Amino acid sequence: MNNVYQDSLALHYKYKGKLETKSIFPINNAHDLSLLYTPGVAEPCRVIAKDKSKSFELTMRGRTVAIISDGSAVLGLGNIGPEAAMPVMEGKALLLKEFAGIDSVPLVINTQDAQEIIKFVKQVAPSFAGINLEDICAPNAFIVEDALQDIGIPVFNDDQHGTSIVVTAALTNAAKVVNKPFSSLKVVLVGAGAAGLAISRMLLGLECSSKGCNLIDGTQSVEDLIIVDSKGIISKSRRDLNIYKQVLSQVSNKKNLDGGLKEAIVGADVVIGVSREGLITQDMVRSMAKDAIVFAMANPEPEILPDLAKAAGARVVATGRSDYANQINNVLAFPAIFRAVIDGRLTSITSDMKIVAAKAIAELVPNPTEDRIVPEPFFPNLAKKVSEKIINFLNI
Amino acid sequence: MNNVYQDSLALHYKYKGKLETKSIFPINNAHDLSLLYTPGVAEPCRVIAKDKSKSFELTMRGRTVAIISDGSAVLGLGNIGPEAAMPVMEGKALLLKEFAGIDSVPLVINTQDAQEIIKFVKQVAPSFAGINLEDICAPNAFIVEDALQDIGIPVFNDDQHGTSIVVTAALTNAAKVVNKPFSSLKVVLVGAGAAGLAISRMLLGLECSSKGCNLIDGTQSVEDLIIVDSKGIISKSRRDLNIYKQVLSQVSNKKNLDGGLKEAIVGADVVIGVSREGLITQDMVRSMAKDAIVFAMANPEPEILPDLAKAAGARVVATGRSDYANQINNVLAFPAIFRAVIDGRLTSITSDMKIVAAKAIAELVPNPTEDRIVPEPFFPNLAKKVSEKIINFLNI
Repeated sequence: MNNVYQDSLALHYKYKGKLETKSIFPINNAHDLSLLYTPGVAEPCRVIAKDKSKSFELTMRGRTVAIISDGSAVLGLGNIGPEAAMPVMEGKALLLKEFAGIDSVPLVINTQDAQEIIKFVKQVAPSFAGINLEDICAPNAFIVEDALQDIGIPVFNDDQHGTSIVVTAALTNAAKVVNKPFSSLKVVLVGAGAAGLAISRMLLGLECSSKGCNLIDGTQSVEDLIIVDSKGIISKSRRDLNIYKQVLSQVSNKKNLDGGLKEAIVGADVVIGVSREGLITQDMVRSMAKDAIVFAMANPEPEILPDLAKAAGARVVATGRSDYANQINNVLAFPAIFRAVIDGRLTSITSDMKIVAAKAIAELVPNPTEDRIVPEPFFPNLAKKVSEKIINFLNI
Repeated sequence: MNNVYQDSLALHYKYKGKLETKSIFPINNAHDLSLLYTPGVAEPCRVIAKDKSKSFELTMRGRTVAIISDGSAVLGLGNIGPEAAMPVMEGKALLLKEFAGIDSVPLVINTQDAQEIIKFVKQVAPSFAGINLEDICAPNAFIVEDALQDIGIPVFNDDQHGTSIVVTAALTNAAKVVNKPFSSLKVVLVGAGAAGLAISRMLLGLECSSKGCNLIDGTQSVEDLIIVDSKGIISKSRRDLNIYKQVLSQVSNKKNLDGGLKEAIVGADVVIGVSREGLITQDMVRSMAKDAIVFAMANPEPEILPDLAKAAGARVVATGRSDYANQINNVLAFPAIFRAVIDGRLTSITSDMKIVAAKAIAELVPNPTEDRIVPEPFFPNLAKKVSEKIINFLNI
């Protein structure tokens, strides 16, 4: 295990990271220069000056996404700052290119103030077809995304929506494996950051903002969901909840339990961890319902190791990592989402589209098993297939 | 001539611009993913979290430059806005890669307020090894650059310094061709935007800020310089000058002339245009001193076409374009400057370094002629040779 860290470090040192920029054209002579630069370049400038929307057709903007982070909530490492967040953002850029053919630019920024992040994204928007927000702590992640829904290009928080799409897909298939209806599942969610709250919303079939939640038409939700944050179970009696948790406290935890994860998990069908290494014990898994489903997605080290969870009776176990079976990783969702953004020149990404994406991902594994509830990242043309479902749904 | 515009437009449509991002590594399997993304990527994150300077060694930051514009003064096209500026910025990124092997990211931004641009650059700085400011109108270009000299990475306004470096190199060799000492030259400069004022400073051997100017040790300056802006000759009697022009009014125009370009140019050895198409007439060239030097650098259409200038008696004529002889183009300077920034991990770009760069460029043409006062952009290893002179000068 240490090897993967040391090997990764050596590789990053060797090449100074892993993403580069390239000319689509070689520039070999003065004629090439006159087309790609002055004087020829004045003509696309003039055309766009007359009609800004032409920037999507005449510049890299039309096929390029920004990956923006303030470094405040990176992997399971916490608030390590923008410089230290760059290896992850560069990695995301690689995934967009390799899995969906999308160009992207990682931008790590030197502010963790929500209003400043909002302003930054608005200012840089003319350069891109879409914005992927990444590893921004809660509740800033929500505040920032809420404020950026009408800027002309889609703003997508991958930690929230990428994760919730893939978790929903995985849980749909895991429920099939253990032969329990999705709508009967009692779910405990550990970790109420951006990812945790977004998963909660999607599993409850809700579309939420700071103002409240609405049920999305025609979606199925789980039977009950209990959210556990660092202070314990989120319930109506808590007085320390931010507005986003308050809203969810009204529609989750039907039995109004108090206590911690240990109390919440007794009898649960599913536990979903988006928190920290080691938070789920074998005793906790033993206290769950029969055929328990354990998604231990903390990165880089999961809440409980798969072998330990299985030994304690879990039937389906998934992590966020590529070195175990059932990798619940955003890489299954965000390349497809941005492929749809670019191919459909979308201006927003709606809850409906996310549900379509989750279904499309789940359907790629028509006969799920304990060891295969989601397609692998290398499933052929995954992003293309999922993005086509989104585009078809939109009737573009 | 129309063809170069239509051909350029067709090419931009065909490929959606011309720059792409690429993985340095192919990602073929789960093992690759575990090194380039989770869990392996956590290790470079941890190392940088302990020591931010490692971000230059472990991420693309160490070899990547941002090209930032607000679209307020693009080519000769004026304030066409950020979207329409993108084709030029993408072109610059191509030049950095092709001529100096440097990765770069074009960012066009949605504000033309100097303080907002300053804040934006500070916020995005952790992503890059250096910042190239581009096509920002005067005096904002000066205000922005002045405010960004101590942010830990160099901020270089290419319109100012790239242009002034190449003009100084070209004028050094043009003076040789007409056999006049550099220090005897009477120069008229048309166009007091960012480029014009920076050229003025460099030809006068000055290092300036909004607070005033100092003579740079050991530099040679021209005999006299008259600056002409859209209102006419800049002189001490003008009451409509911004602070940057006021400062220059004290050290230029020794005879304290008033009037316009027509009055200024009589008897001049050199006219340098960084203004608009057609501003210099054949009659004006006829009124200049014998063996006149005409640098007509407006883009995309010069102040006077080379054939007309020659017919009116000019001996050495240069433009900014790649389809005439003597292309005075920033491409001769900025790739070399940023090569030095990256190789020397520089934190600022000083006036001394700019002078070294100008000399190094001029020396690449040891025997200049009327038709060759500067090296061609395709001069072998130009950027490498010039950047090595800078690095040697700094004794790194």
